[in-house]
Amino acid sequence: MEKLAVLGCGVVGSGVVELFEKNKELIQKRCGKNLEMAYILDLRDFPERPYANKLVKDIQIILDDPEVSVVAECMGGIEPAFTFVKSCLEAGKSVATSNKELVAAKGDILLKTAKEHNCNFFFEASVGGAIPIIRPLHKCLAANAFSAIAGILNGTTNFILNKMIKENMDFASALALAQEKGYAEKDPTADIEGHDACRKICILSSLAFGKHVYPESVYTKGISDVELKDTKFCGQLGYAIKLIARVQKLENGKILPTVMPMAVEEDNLLSQVNGVYNAVMVRGDGVGKTMFYGRGAGKLPTASAVLGDMIEEVQLDHTIPSQTWENVNSTDFIEDFSAFSAKRYFRTTSADVQTLNDVFGGIEEKTISTEEEETIFITSEAFNAQQLDQAVKALAQKQIQVLAQYPVLVS
Amino acid sequence: MEKLAVLGCGVVGSGVVELFEKNKELIQKRCGKNLEMAYILDLRDFPERPYANKLVKDIQIILDDPEVSVVAECMGGIEPAFTFVKSCLEAGKSVATSNKELVAAKGDILLKTAKEHNCNFFFEASVGGAIPIIRPLHKCLAANAFSAIAGILNGTTNFILNKMIKENMDFASALALAQEKGYAEKDPTADIEGHDACRKICILSSLAFGKHVYPESVYTKGISDVELKDTKFCGQLGYAIKLIARVQKLENGKILPTVMPMAVEEDNLLSQVNGVYNAVMVRGDGVGKTMFYGRGAGKLPTASAVLGDMIEEVQLDHTIPSQTWENVNSTDFIEDFSAFSAKRYFRTTSADVQTLNDVFGGIEEKTISTEEEETIFITSEAFNAQQLDQAVKALAQKQIQVLAQYPVLVS
Repeated sequence: MEKLAVLGCGVVGSGVVELFEKNKELIQKRCGKNLEMAYILDLRDFPERPYANKLVKDIQIILDDPEVSVVAECMGGIEPAFTFVKSCLEAGKSVATSNKELVAAKGDILLKTAKEHNCNFFFEASVGGAIPIIRPLHKCLAANAFSAIAGILNGTTNFILNKMIKENMDFASALALAQEKGYAEKDPTADIEGHDACRKICILSSLAFGKHVYPESVYTKGISDVELKDTKFCGQLGYAIKLIARVQKLENGKILPTVMPMAVEEDNLLSQVNGVYNAVMVRGDGVGKTMFYGRGAGKLPTASAVLGDMIEEVQLDHTIPSQTWENVNSTDFIEDFSAFSAKRYFRTTSADVQTLNDVFGGIEEKTISTEEEETIFITSEAFNAQQLDQAVKALAQKQIQVLAQYPVLVS
Repeated sequence: MEKLAVLGCGVVGSGVVELFEKNKELIQKRCGKNLEMAYILDLRDFPERPYANKLVKDIQIILDDPEVSVVAECMGGIEPAFTFVKSCLEAGKSVATSNKELVAAKGDILLKTAKEHNCNFFFEASVGGAIPIIRPLHKCLAANAFSAIAGILNGTTNFILNKMIKENMDFASALALAQEKGYAEKDPTADIEGHDACRKICILSSLAFGKHVYPESVYTKGISDVELKDTKFCGQLGYAIKLIARVQKLENGKILPTVMPMAVEEDNLLSQVNGVYNAVMVRGDGVGKTMFYGRGAGKLPTASAVLGDMIEEVQLDHTIPSQTWENVNSTDFIEDFSAFSAKRYFRTTSADVQTLNDVFGGIEEKTISTEEEETIFITSEAFNAQQLDQAVKALAQKQIQVLAQYPVLVS
């Protein structure tokens, strides 16, 4: 009999206990071990819950029990989660976490600690909720050199953009609806400003390229500026505006991680990801293009990912070498955002096609002239920040003003 | 230094060697071991290839080398692949295979042999080519009780149906084009009659439900009867005809595996899977709905999956308990196809809506009346085989003839 413990009895933590108890027989068969959910750590009391007798308030009880081999961390935030997780790993207990903030900020330290104590620090639930992405990336695709990862990694913003695109709802109303449905927090900043998606692309980038990428190194722009009219015009050109968290490997060997709204072509499956669903597209030199899709959040979906990690951890007697990265104490391997280059969607004041062709060296055939005397088009060529700046200035000289601009995702 | 070997130097086998040599440094770092591609077994000579010096013609050389720990089987077919793989496992060498025919026919025996000799028999490449699906299913989703799996598991038929749907090409022309492009064999039977997809759903069913499902137990219907006009009318109703390999768990605890063309709603991502791409949708009680998408075949994509397995196998010193199933010597756990029930797409001779509503207990609002005096509609209710039979007879009494019928996929 091996004992499991859960830190934090909130939505995810209680989901882990619930799903474990529901499928206990199946889980034990699949991992070939007898398991018991022994402790649930929380400072609060939940006397009415069926597992009230497992609740403890002191982490030391879990640390001191040698039969506890695997611990789930579902508390969220950096502290006390970091201290608790580190203590568990130092006691040789493997940890599975759903806490993306913790992994993005402290992943390198915790992976190192796990290795030093011959146990594992897993975090499948920290990116894409229920979607299997961490293990596929470092195991199934271990033979690949990766060139790009692009994903819809935040369900709240995808829900809001979807309502704007499909139901002509403006940003404020869509956000209010998301809050009403419990998809957005009262303070929605972390979601709508892209911070949540940023943490997740940090984790995927670190894993795919082997070096810790911190949130501060990632150009991050949210969706609060996205106007309803751009979601509409973009759709008429055959694109959907999505908040895309992305990392690409450049020819100079550096990587360029970004989070920003981008125009995604309709025949790219990412453009078809609706509601609160998440999806991650991965490009590698062997696999080509592959995509993973599913629920990005929620009690049981997230619990499914945490338990999947715990079930593997109870079977391991050594640290997995593939799921790790180094802290290189430098951002030399990360390219500056000014190098980012892409075709662009534009909405400008009224402009003639000849002028636009001259300024941008060609635009795509379909352009839209609106009743409000605006012109909407997509450039044929890719532009980086400096080239973009020059083009905007050239337009200004002809009294054409840029009203909105989004880069186009190359899938 | 551990040695690897590849059986079969065809498209996949040579891809395994090529991708390994290309990313050798990365692969060694990820698995924490020094690896050498030591032997490639083939009866043919390939003197011009860079790895000609590794070619051997006698399996015994590989079996006798104690330094060979992991072998890839990329020969295809049942024999001699089965004998060779079994011998490797009996010698304690783990095997990774891309051979779905072998896994579907002999998986139970080979998994048992692997367990008896404390090594592993992996087969990520046998379903969905490059797509990570086997490992996600038994590891990432190990905490889930599965209720359904539905996939587009054959790229050739998806290419053909796609050409019919998107380019109005008839079946024969689309098949000829697939053959010209190398997507279809000269004898395309295994693909277009659904046998290939059948083997793959057998593997997924066996893994998800823990008991070996043989191809003979699966109702299998291919796409050679699909008429161009049905792909068109189905599209007008908001559905796409796709060859769907599926297994569902019924309320009586039995499973029902099927392969057949089905009408897939446009807002189901499976309907958006184009060309030779594959995709697999999995439903579990924790994860909800999740989907995996990518290249279903091809040299490097398949090699990526085989190598992913090999990289994990070199790190393991025991048999993984989660990736296995039993031979229960009975099909009691498989429901008969007569129990299959679904809403249906119909094309009939001219019929009035009132009659159709009477016979089917309601049809969906949108119906199409064609110039050829045919009527196209979708029923509101699900029908099993017996109910379908009764409905067809009731229509016949009113001189209405059924010209085509497809079940609708519930995602």
